[in-house]
Amino acid sequence: MGKSFDELIKKVAAIPMKKVAVCVSQDSAVIEAVRAAKDRKIADAILVGDAKKTKAIADEIGIDISDFEMIDVEDVVEASLTAVKLVHDGKADMYMKGLIDTKGFLKSVLDKEVGLRTGKMLSHVCVFDIKGYDRLMFLTDVAFLPYPTLEDKVNIIKNTVEICEALGVNNPKVAPLAAVEVVNPKMPVTVEAEELHQMNLRGEITGCIVDGPLSMDLAIDPEAAKHKGATDRPIQGDADILLFPDIHSGNIAYKSIVHTAELVNGNILTGTAAPVVLTSRSDSMEVKVNSIVVASLVAEYMKNNK
Amino acid sequence: MGKSFDELIKKVAAIPMKKVAVCVSQDSAVIEAVRAAKDRKIADAILVGDAKKTKAIADEIGIDISDFEMIDVEDVVEASLTAVKLVHDGKADMYMKGLIDTKGFLKSVLDKEVGLRTGKMLSHVCVFDIKGYDRLMFLTDVAFLPYPTLEDKVNIIKNTVEICEALGVNNPKVAPLAAVEVVNPKMPVTVEAEELHQMNLRGEITGCIVDGPLSMDLAIDPEAAKHKGATDRPIQGDADILLFPDIHSGNIAYKSIVHTAELVNGNILTGTAAPVVLTSRSDSMEVKVNSIVVASLVAEYMKNNK
Repeated sequence: MGKSFDELIKKVAAIPMKKVAVCVSQDSAVIEAVRAAKDRKIADAILVGDAKKTKAIADEIGIDISDFEMIDVEDVVEASLTAVKLVHDGKADMYMKGLIDTKGFLKSVLDKEVGLRTGKMLSHVCVFDIKGYDRLMFLTDVAFLPYPTLEDKVNIIKNTVEICEALGVNNPKVAPLAAVEVVNPKMPVTVEAEELHQMNLRGEITGCIVDGPLSMDLAIDPEAAKHKGATDRPIQGDADILLFPDIHSGNIAYKSIVHTAELVNGNILTGTAAPVVLTSRSDSMEVKVNSIVVASLVAEYMKNNK
Repeated sequence: MGKSFDELIKKVAAIPMKKVAVCVSQDSAVIEAVRAAKDRKIADAILVGDAKKTKAIADEIGIDISDFEMIDVEDVVEASLTAVKLVHDGKADMYMKGLIDTKGFLKSVLDKEVGLRTGKMLSHVCVFDIKGYDRLMFLTDVAFLPYPTLEDKVNIIKNTVEICEALGVNNPKVAPLAAVEVVNPKMPVTVEAEELHQMNLRGEITGCIVDGPLSMDLAIDPEAAKHKGATDRPIQGDADILLFPDIHSGNIAYKSIVHTAELVNGNILTGTAAPVVLTSRSDSMEVKVNSIVVASLVAEYMKNNK
């Protein structure tokens, strides 16, 4: 399971339908996405925001939203707290960003009373289903943590391993990426990657196999691994989790693939008490729907593994 | 001109045929590449290395090399100095790595007596012709300089602008990449990118348009630029040169694209007195031939712009 988005969608169909609480619903792209998600029986939604504006936008783009539950809150901050509280109280299963800036949205996620805080660090995971590859790839962190420390990277791995498991990818292979596949003291990234590998061997990072440092070709291309004679390494071009050195390398690689390859992808924020869909303006409707697919499976997993 | 490798190959056909000096020629991938380059009338080659071994390898892979000039030098270091001297003395136009490690190869490039030193800093340029894009993209530096300083980045831009001009891309648009497109003091990469932009405005970097910081989507995708409302910026998804923050981000993005998109590419080392082809083991024969295409045009340009 979990080898493609098609399989994830089948998996979603087999679990009880989840509900997403939309934070500030007067946003055409989000309205389109929740409509598509409901039509495809992926998830239902509660629209929290300016009800009048939300209806006007839906009318304008010719989308019927009369079958969605709506909670009318004009003020953006109040709407965000109302929406996140639905998830906090278990009335919705996941939380999705609408027409609110990322800062305000995260503020509601982290609200001490009605938010989705846990003891865990937050991190972002992007799930790629790239044409030509027979598995999903989990890219992290390409959007949230600017310069993760070694400790942060351990937490990123833990968060992402959980997402993998939720999607049916067990004991994932983790590739801490660098420009090269050997440790070079002049490149601190490679030293940290080796340390993550050692921590995994010592049982300090569990539920996965960590092999680093790895160059991108050794991480994703079995042919390159064979050609470079890396036959003694745990990862042979078959990494599941791609761990980036920092947000620049992660974000640039993420967008490089999105804008040049054929692929399907969905993104999620994790480390929270419930899955959070934090897509960006420039993400397509499909990316938003796919993110709801991922969030639904993670919500189900969290429910069963409390 | 210069919009695709097909056009570059036509351009090569219109200039006097160049000659590549191969450094340690007993390498099957390199023999295949120079054979293909000669057959396609792209470039001739002088094979410097162990002549007996070189012939044996050629026989083994069924390639006739009897029409190539060969210089028999068994010792690797001696062979490298002999080969680079051919370029230094103008008997060959460009220099190509064969069965020698990168360190030994670069040592010959930098040799004070017979090498290809100039006052310039060396940098690596990778030329991409990606399916779906109507122009060439120049990625730098994805392989040579680990952590370029601001000054290094200025030199990288200068080197790469020259390569663009040699390939018919005049006044190229340079995108200093980052995870975000706004300056954030907490992300030094964005501050440096803005400084490069200012240096360009002040006339300290010429022959190009520098606009930074830029995220990858704003750099290469006009739709994303439109969607994000970045209509006042000099670069609107139409960057020619992609300048990476460091070798990790560059190398990971480079390999991400190579291993997931459909593309044609060739790589070159520049800042030298003559073009240097420094491809890696895992590069395909086509990449090696394309690198000779790029090197030939750069050699012609250097000759005309001495």
